[in-house]
Amino acid sequence: MRMTETNRQFRLAARPVGLPRRSDWQFTTEPIPGPAEGEVLVRTLYLSLDPAMRGWMNEGKSYIPPVELGAVMRAGGAGRVVASRHPGFAVGDTVTGSLGVQDYACLPGKHLTRVETRLARLPVFLGTLGMPGMTAYFGLLEVGRPTPGDTVVVSGAAGAVGGVVGQIAKLKGCRVVGIAGGGDKCRYVVDELGFDAAIDYKAEDVKVALRRACPKGIDVYFDNVGGDTLDDALANLARHARIVICGAISQYNNTTPVQGPRNYLSLLVNRARMEGMVVFDYADRYGEAVRDLARWMAEGKLQSREHVVEGFESFPEALLTLFSGGNLGKLVLKVAEE
Amino acid sequence: MRMTETNRQFRLAARPVGLPRRSDWQFTTEPIPGPAEGEVLVRTLYLSLDPAMRGWMNEGKSYIPPVELGAVMRAGGAGRVVASRHPGFAVGDTVTGSLGVQDYACLPGKHLTRVETRLARLPVFLGTLGMPGMTAYFGLLEVGRPTPGDTVVVSGAAGAVGGVVGQIAKLKGCRVVGIAGGGDKCRYVVDELGFDAAIDYKAEDVKVALRRACPKGIDVYFDNVGGDTLDDALANLARHARIVICGAISQYNNTTPVQGPRNYLSLLVNRARMEGMVVFDYADRYGEAVRDLARWMAEGKLQSREHVVEGFESFPEALLTLFSGGNLGKLVLKVAEE
Repeated sequence: MRMTETNRQFRLAARPVGLPRRSDWQFTTEPIPGPAEGEVLVRTLYLSLDPAMRGWMNEGKSYIPPVELGAVMRAGGAGRVVASRHPGFAVGDTVTGSLGVQDYACLPGKHLTRVETRLARLPVFLGTLGMPGMTAYFGLLEVGRPTPGDTVVVSGAAGAVGGVVGQIAKLKGCRVVGIAGGGDKCRYVVDELGFDAAIDYKAEDVKVALRRACPKGIDVYFDNVGGDTLDDALANLARHARIVICGAISQYNNTTPVQGPRNYLSLLVNRARMEGMVVFDYADRYGEAVRDLARWMAEGKLQSREHVVEGFESFPEALLTLFSGGNLGKLVLKVAEE
Repeated sequence: MRMTETNRQFRLAARPVGLPRRSDWQFTTEPIPGPAEGEVLVRTLYLSLDPAMRGWMNEGKSYIPPVELGAVMRAGGAGRVVASRHPGFAVGDTVTGSLGVQDYACLPGKHLTRVETRLARLPVFLGTLGMPGMTAYFGLLEVGRPTPGDTVVVSGAAGAVGGVVGQIAKLKGCRVVGIAGGGDKCRYVVDELGFDAAIDYKAEDVKVALRRACPKGIDVYFDNVGGDTLDDALANLARHARIVICGAISQYNNTTPVQGPRNYLSLLVNRARMEGMVVFDYADRYGEAVRDLARWMAEGKLQSREHVVEGFESFPEALLTLFSGGNLGKLVLKVAEE
């Protein structure tokens, strides 16, 4: 692995209005930092590109502080230790952590997780065995609480979280319907991930399609998108349904107020609940999830797919792929060769 | 008690658009029916006027079938048995049940509940010891699940449900803030019902007032009104807050779509849940609630207030009092002298 001479970075330059533009970041270079006592220097190999990153660019209270103007853009990543002053890490270890959009990150060892690449390829630790997988696992099982025979619907079904949600629901004995944009994604979730059915929101009336695909109503709806799709799901709930609010990608680039779910009184009619979740709350149980997910992968019961885009400098455009629906599986930016 | 010669009734004549009008019902008279085997003939003394009645007038799936056009308008009521062919009821018994907007109701005995007027005045069995009280009790305790020290906010605080919700929350050791319309109602919930604070939504910015009244955020929000007030509560949630969706009186007479809660992503940020409830689900536990509520009343810990309007024929106008905010406490139509 060749060390670049400098540390390239994307720093937040402006708070975006609507879709982020390249000019919302400043491209900078600075010397590669050296680790202080307790710190580890990591060469970034892959960066995780996630819808949540759009929210981190906004001002205001959320589940995590916003990225400050001038700071390196926050991003999860996977990399290799190139220098260590922490006893838990040695040069050559592969790790994940909040590396930021930069070639090299210097972080306290306690903020890094060592990953075993004999379990899976490195980018998988940003997807199925990373935050998206943790989100799917705890969001579905702890908040959605499916029981065998339940009808589970997931939006963003071809995405990093949605694909895992649906596959876990199948493993738990549920009937699973995915909502995704376009024929390719719909075929992917049915043919490759094993969903029972898929609805193409770009081609179908989702409300009508849900009624047909879920004749007994929806028991668990795992929502990644918000907007009209959430309303269409609300219109098709079964009694005592659970809605997991994981995200609302349709609303993240709004320049108008968020679209509230007009059908929310379906919660009353159906004695249903809608509950938000943030994966960090389950941090002390990630090991349990990784164990289950890795075993299912090893047994061939859980498919993991990454959509890898190459080239550090294409970060702004790569991130936008999420909002144009261009990715199939976990979107990852490859920064350097392993 | 004098028997009227005929049975006066209000029958549903049209499905209202917006606020109901007198012409949405037909005033009819018919002979007083005689009970068949297993039935009981009840003289209506008081009718319960509830916001939910507006929803029953609409077509479409809900938690209860709509009132059919031409049918007697559905209403809970309290009355006296004047003839019985059911072994559980004797002439002179006081009962509650779904009597309908009519002078006399002939119902199967199993659909009636005998009430003990030594426990409380008869109209109280339509309020604090009736459906509104049951709704408050189970909605707050089973769905809201307050713990001592929690901040509980209730909208429609001077109404039949809201007033009981706040008082139970106080009994459970919570800090209680009511939202109501007008100074009289706000003084009532603080001075008579013992709430810690009240917010006058007609005179104050509710979002700002909630921030001031709930410095640690809202742990339980019991919503009877929907609309902007729900959004203002969502903007002030504490972590792991619970929102009980009991009703949405601000939306019942809409001629435009229901206003969805634009701040629903606060559920995600705060890991909060919003859950609907329908009191009928707790029917097999009403006895437990009546026991607790009646004991608290007897001990002077729970105040019950009824807003009694006289005169059967004023039913349409009396019902509208609910939507103009004219009632303080449980709205009851007195149909005949006890």
